[in-house]
Amino acid sequence: MRFTKMHGAGNDYVYVDCFAENLDDRNIAELAQSISHRHFGVGADGLILIRPSEIADARMQMLNADGSESEMCGNGIRCVAKYVFDHGIAKQEQLKIESGGSVRDLSLTIGADGKVEAVTVDMGEPILEAPLVPTSLVDHGHVVGHEVEFDGQKLSVTCVSMGNPHCVIFVPQATDELVLGLGPKIETDPRFPKRINVEFVEIISRSEVRQRTWERGSGETWACGTGASAVCVAGVLTGNTDRKILNHLLGGDLVLQWNETSGRVNMTGGAVEVFSGEWNA
Amino acid sequence: MRFTKMHGAGNDYVYVDCFAENLDDRNIAELAQSISHRHFGVGADGLILIRPSEIADARMQMLNADGSESEMCGNGIRCVAKYVFDHGIAKQEQLKIESGGSVRDLSLTIGADGKVEAVTVDMGEPILEAPLVPTSLVDHGHVVGHEVEFDGQKLSVTCVSMGNPHCVIFVPQATDELVLGLGPKIETDPRFPKRINVEFVEIISRSEVRQRTWERGSGETWACGTGASAVCVAGVLTGNTDRKILNHLLGGDLVLQWNETSGRVNMTGGAVEVFSGEWNA
Repeated sequence: MRFTKMHGAGNDYVYVDCFAENLDDRNIAELAQSISHRHFGVGADGLILIRPSEIADARMQMLNADGSESEMCGNGIRCVAKYVFDHGIAKQEQLKIESGGSVRDLSLTIGADGKVEAVTVDMGEPILEAPLVPTSLVDHGHVVGHEVEFDGQKLSVTCVSMGNPHCVIFVPQATDELVLGLGPKIETDPRFPKRINVEFVEIISRSEVRQRTWERGSGETWACGTGASAVCVAGVLTGNTDRKILNHLLGGDLVLQWNETSGRVNMTGGAVEVFSGEWNA
Repeated sequence: MRFTKMHGAGNDYVYVDCFAENLDDRNIAELAQSISHRHFGVGADGLILIRPSEIADARMQMLNADGSESEMCGNGIRCVAKYVFDHGIAKQEQLKIESGGSVRDLSLTIGADGKVEAVTVDMGEPILEAPLVPTSLVDHGHVVGHEVEFDGQKLSVTCVSMGNPHCVIFVPQATDELVLGLGPKIETDPRFPKRINVEFVEIISRSEVRQRTWERGSGETWACGTGASAVCVAGVLTGNTDRKILNHLLGGDLVLQWNETSGRVNMTGGAVEVFSGEWNA
């Protein structure tokens, strides 16, 4: 089976072109587990199958390294768009990719070599109502710049769901002590009944931030597309930043824009093809 | 550039066949760093170049993921032997591989498919003199079943160098508390002036053990060939095991034998080709 390893801001997946490859669907969970293993397999955050779609240019089916399915990944879908364009599956610069039952619009930036350099993804509308995030920090309404004590430390938090829950905390410095020390405690705080992703954010200017991410169930990660989107929304709501920001994550840069008219967040970032190979196991 | 990803007991490297590929030698440290990165590259413990040799069937040049060079890796050299035989560089079942300036003898076990299934490597003679290990636990002589206190806990330790220093500790259970909690404290204990690798070993029978490894500078690892050899020597010296043992490591099984006549340790283990690919960066 041919595969291609790609990453978006360091979030790396093994991609299989199911327009060309015939996969046994009964074994894809096992395949995802074995191919994702970083010592015994190819090594990746998971497996993404690029499949034909009846309602879009392609459909992405995403499996985590543990074999479970996910609906959507902002860094992964950029790579799918790059693959679909660079390999001639679709030829236009506006793509539609089906993911988890819904269709996302993507807009491509083509480089001098005729290949995709960056991709803009519609990340959808934020959900701010506390019970829907969900958080029990307030009974109803929004949690914006709310002072909360975690482990004896008072922090100002903003809660945003982008389909998954985020707790955004603006800090003078996103230290290891905060990210690695406090991150796991906030993740599992009972006031977040479905646990929560935690973003520690340094403000560089009104249009530039630096983010470190503690991901629910994963620990610190290189990049989190929904988290970067939540940070953009939180920056506007708290008055810290403008509607368009450059966000420096560990794995690379993302540009986020919270559109005032549509209420939706756009994310723009790179997508990189690292290598291709042949998997025989 | 073509590459092959292989692992021995979970210790995985990117292998490049320099009989076929022309590498720019000035850039191999950078290449090792970029290709070894688990999110932005192929992902591996390091890069091993399989080169022509004037005094052996092939020479292995080993670079760690940080670009530094290493002299020898017991798990890596088995993969080199498998590659050299399976790809027709040498055709006999007794191979000589040059590594770090010396030549190692390897003996191949061929499977039903005509490919190498297991490889036996001569790991050399243990060094037991305390100042040469090095350890200051005693002024001279050997450290065998020596009672030492670490962090308030009394443990019976045996110190063996197999070219690199090991502290072998037989325990009823190799718990996380010991490996992850005490391992780093023993590694950096001032009584080991060059720091030390720590093996926590459960005795199953006189011919079978289970080992967990805290590697100097790396933390817990899947497998450590010199560590498994040190455990074999320590088992004999303490009277816990026979001269030949089956050792279960996290990443797979190794068979070790401390030869009474030659005083040398032989290690036998598998070698697996995981996939091949093309690296363009």
